[in-house]
Amino acid sequence: MSVRLYWQSILIDVNHRMGKLMAQAAARFRAAAIEAFAERGYGATSTRDIANRLGLSTAAMYPHYKSKESLLYAISLDGHQSALHELERTDQPQIAPPDRLRLVVSAFTCWQANNSALARVLQYEIRSLTPEHYKDVATLRRATSAVIGTIIETGSISGDFTVTDTDGALLAISSLCVDVCRWFPSRTHSDPDLLGELYADIALRIVT
Amino acid sequence: MSVRLYWQSILIDVNHRMGKLMAQAAARFRAAAIEAFAERGYGATSTRDIANRLGLSTAAMYPHYKSKESLLYAISLDGHQSALHELERTDQPQIAPPDRLRLVVSAFTCWQANNSALARVLQYEIRSLTPEHYKDVATLRRATSAVIGTIIETGSISGDFTVTDTDGALLAISSLCVDVCRWFPSRTHSDPDLLGELYADIALRIVT
Repeated sequence: MSVRLYWQSILIDVNHRMGKLMAQAAARFRAAAIEAFAERGYGATSTRDIANRLGLSTAAMYPHYKSKESLLYAISLDGHQSALHELERTDQPQIAPPDRLRLVVSAFTCWQANNSALARVLQYEIRSLTPEHYKDVATLRRATSAVIGTIIETGSISGDFTVTDTDGALLAISSLCVDVCRWFPSRTHSDPDLLGELYADIALRIVT
Repeated sequence: MSVRLYWQSILIDVNHRMGKLMAQAAARFRAAAIEAFAERGYGATSTRDIANRLGLSTAAMYPHYKSKESLLYAISLDGHQSALHELERTDQPQIAPPDRLRLVVSAFTCWQANNSALARVLQYEIRSLTPEHYKDVATLRRATSAVIGTIIETGSISGDFTVTDTDGALLAISSLCVDVCRWFPSRTHSDPDLLGELYADIALRIVT
């Protein structure tokens, strides 16, 4: 290997490692912000509070996030994408609508239960996003809702579901799943999978 | 009327008017606090913010509420009592369980829609109460839940309802109603009464 190639390979490696370290640092800031926002609320949290949780100064945050709102935006995009991917990954369009609904509702319920602090931030702090950022997040929310909506429509057309107000059923099923982040865990419900099964049953009762 | 009786009646009247004014002032502080907590969150709101909304200083608040938490406690007691009274007032134990459930779910949904700012404070800021105050509020929440729970149990025993997991049905129906305060109004749902009817239908589908 020539000296030039040697140095080039080192530069590429350093660049790669730096990128990885930057991504890891950004993820740590997001995690600290989720904790802080979920505990105290977005309005009551300062960028200093977030940096302090990591034993850092706010100056260490600026290369990653220029403002508290840009952190909330990154968290919101990430979180909504994660929930959407979970539903898309779980959905099996080739199977019968009742089984399909059961799988997806169960997965959405589990996601809310397993990520309740993040989910609370997503739901309750969405109003603090700038209008442009809100629009991006709203697109992801509509896509998530559409996964369940498509199953209800499909089951309604096939005759598997008897519900006539499909939009109402979608609203109720989505709302039911989303509200899990408000109260989970409770004294009687602390197992995400069991709650997922219960809510899958309830969702089927709503549409059939 | 003797001079003494005349002055006594004036004193009673002044006392009565003062009490009324004090109650009115306290109610104005609660209303301003509900607005502030719903908009910015409890953690981000100071007692000065609340007083400023009324064009007053915090000194004017202290005769009524000694702290932000005592305001939240008063709002929580009031709000939960109001929801509970609405359900108790609506419930008609002598009618058939399906009609009874329809009435109560519809009333609870409407209450959440008509009082969405207050309801958000009740639901999302409950963790900011002191443990003693939390206990008092939890008692009211259990009583509210019990109104719906009793109807589900009664319908289950009478055979009107087929649901076997009555606790699960109660959780789902309560959660559905409570979550209204998070999103109401939306582009598609802005009429509390129509939403009440839709949720009454959904609740019946859940139990039958």
